Amino acid sequence: SIDAARLLGRIRTLGEIGRDSDGRLVRLAASDTEKLGRDQFVAWIRDAGLEVAVDRIGNIFGIWKAGGVADEAPILIGSHIDTVIGAGIYDGCYGTLSGLEVIETLKAEGLTPSRPIAVAAFTNEEGVRYAPDMMGSLVYVGGLDIDSALATIGTDGTILGRELERIGYAGEHRPGFLKPHAYIELHIEQGPVLEREGIPVGVVEDLQGISWQRVTITGDANHAGTTPISMRRDAGHAAARVVTFLRERAKASNTPTVATVGCMSFEPNAINVIPSRAIFTVDLRDPDEDRLREEEAALANFLESLSTEEQVGISAERLARFEPVKFDQSIVRLVEKAARERGLACRRMTSGAGHDAQMIARIAPSAMIFVPSAGGISHNPKEFTADEDLVAGANVLLDVVRRLATE
Amino acid sequence: SIDAARLLGRIRTLGEIGRDSDGRLVRLAASDTEKLGRDQFVAWIRDAGLEVAVDRIGNIFGIWKAGGVADEAPILIGSHIDTVIGAGIYDGCYGTLSGLEVIETLKAEGLTPSRPIAVAAFTNEEGVRYAPDMMGSLVYVGGLDIDSALATIGTDGTILGRELERIGYAGEHRPGFLKPHAYIELHIEQGPVLEREGIPVGVVEDLQGISWQRVTITGDANHAGTTPISMRRDAGHAAARVVTFLRERAKASNTPTVATVGCMSFEPNAINVIPSRAIFTVDLRDPDEDRLREEEAALANFLESLSTEEQVGISAERLARFEPVKFDQSIVRLVEKAARERGLACRRMTSGAGHDAQMIARIAPSAMIFVPSAGGISHNPKEFTADEDLVAGANVLLDVVRRLATE
Ligand SMILES: NC(=O)NCCC(=O)O
Ligand SMILES: NC(=O)NCCC(=O)O
Repeated sequence: SIDAARLLGRIRTLGEIGRDSDGRLVRLAASDTEKLGRDQFVAWIRDAGLEVAVDRIGNIFGIWKAGGVADEAPILIGSHIDTVIGAGIYDGCYGTLSGLEVIETLKAEGLTPSRPIAVAAFTNEEGVRYAPDMMGSLVYVGGLDIDSALATIGTDGTILGRELERIGYAGEHRPGFLKPHAYIELHIEQGPVLEREGIPVGVVEDLQGISWQRVTITGDANHAGTTPISMRRDAGHAAARVVTFLRERAKASNTPTVATVGCMSFEPNAINVIPSRAIFTVDLRDPDEDRLREEEAALANFLESLSTEEQVGISAERLARFEPVKFDQSIVRLVEKAARERGLACRRMTSGAGHDAQMIARIAPSAMIFVPSAGGISHNPKEFTADEDLVAGANVLLDVVRRLATE
Repeated sequence: SIDAARLLGRIRTLGEIGRDSDGRLVRLAASDTEKLGRDQFVAWIRDAGLEVAVDRIGNIFGIWKAGGVADEAPILIGSHIDTVIGAGIYDGCYGTLSGLEVIETLKAEGLTPSRPIAVAAFTNEEGVRYAPDMMGSLVYVGGLDIDSALATIGTDGTILGRELERIGYAGEHRPGFLKPHAYIELHIEQGPVLEREGIPVGVVEDLQGISWQRVTITGDANHAGTTPISMRRDAGHAAARVVTFLRERAKASNTPTVATVGCMSFEPNAINVIPSRAIFTVDLRDPDEDRLREEEAALANFLESLSTEEQVGISAERLARFEPVKFDQSIVRLVEKAARERGLACRRMTSGAGHDAQMIARIAPSAMIFVPSAGGISHNPKEFTADEDLVAGANVLLDVVRRLATE
């Protein structure tokens, strides 16, 4: 079994890196605070005696090139260490540090693997500073070309490539340089299912589709006191109508569709000026591709009629679009077997969140292991998973990787 | 008559002071750019041979202490030179510069006034950086104590008193040091009425009540992909419901009530995080005090039920509250007479915007003169009034002031 104290200690240490003056954890991709997290992760990789490799998009790899099998396709364990704004300490870090923990454990066991085992921390999984999310793994599998990715402009106006250079993580390796034999990712569920059902281990069979857009509505600035309601072209009011439309539609349907408006800004943003512009994001998700397309079409239709009704200009820009993904059934069964052998109840499930596994599945058999999230809370400082669950998940990962690396 | 070229030239000169890199006019109260505008206004006051006085809240006065009448209560002509974000060049500046123009004209005429005549530029009329609006004139009439006003924290976190010191306009005079015999303010209408009716001069009989609030809604940050709609406590969605509620209510009524949400911000403002907090402003106005109270009560009720329905915390903070004001009928009649004598059609009207006259009316007989705004557009770079209308309005002001200063 893994060294529980070492794993939990590292999760806590990394969780203190990148606190802002309000105590919030903010380790946005390729930022100064994320550099500190990366440096710590690389130091631990070196301590474990693994080879460090960084590719051009900044993905970090710790590779155990066990003896004579160095040229074989590796087993890859991965996740990410970037965070949202006001994050919890588990999202991404748990999987990355468990990957390292598993390799150290197998090394210490004196295992003779049939192929290398590597751990990866992929760049910009969260997509908060630069869109799309899962960018590092997407580039890795050739789903986005490296030069476009490096040219991405962030919400703060920075350019990803320049930021990676600045923090010293614009590596030399070609993204995709290691072609995995299999990929496995351990993650907190970030949703309420496992906790509600009292099940410690989830095996992820599929992952829902993700559609991200940035919508810009343009009206006319005018005086809040003198402009009759009938003469207004109010970009802010039109934006509010989109927010309520999405919610009413999601509530009225009995599908698992979710829709979120997470970012919103008004211009000129002055108390007595009717907003001339509103810019906001729409995050739409559904496990079914046809239904996700229907949701996108319904939004587009609504925006079109809104534009006429409210006499405003509306444009929508795509920030991310990923179809639902099905994971590899043989790895899914391996996870179930490992859980069973450890006496842990396990259920198959769909992932509501996007993950790097979703991208790596394009080039290698992949699957994921979930552990419970207290109250289903994530992307929030209150994100929490009990130590016992963290350790159990990492041991299931250990058993699955041992099996994959010796078959 | 006034020197049209001089007045129009000054309006244009002042209108170029405070352009940002996008060419937008932004001369927020007590900012660096407003300092440049103040310096230019003070230079013109000195050129005109008037005495300059600045009070503790930064109101600037140019005083013509004509001969033996220096101790009489003055005729005060005023407005403001601070602007909104992305302003036009007329709002406030037109009235302030016309006041100066009128004094210079009367001086040049060799008038022997029965009392001093002064022009004022009041601090922070717009209320965009510091609330409430009309702050300089409000403090001047004793409606807000000077120390509270100086301690006001701006939308950018600055403290008004410190900013006034920094730009060199924390004056020595006690606010209220000149008690006016009468006050008159010339302004662009900022609304559509005069243009629509083809009338060059409006005389303002009354001014609607203004209620400003800042509303904070607190929900729970959570993951956009994994959190079922039914489990969300979405502060952004609740805020959007307030925006649509206000609009639907205003549209459904057949009163002149207006409601505007000009400022909006979400936290953490990340694409895949359900907003934990939304902060926005509500600007409610009505010429009738009872109706304005009803609107405020309706909003408060709605917020209360929303808090339950959406499971969010809601708090509202008052930023400004002014009752409707009636102006002095004898000055109103003087304006009508002056317009008639110049062959200009004139109509009585209500002001939709707040003005310094609204505050000064508490301590002196006051009224306002309006000129047409093209398309009713204001608080917008497209704000426009034809030269002919600007000159006509200034000449009516001249005649009214001449009359008030000699009776
Ligand atoms: N796991 C996770 O939070 N990924 C971020 C991408 C997303 O699903 O929004
Ligand atoms: N005249 C004018 O725009 N005043 C600003 C205060 C307000 O009415 O919002």
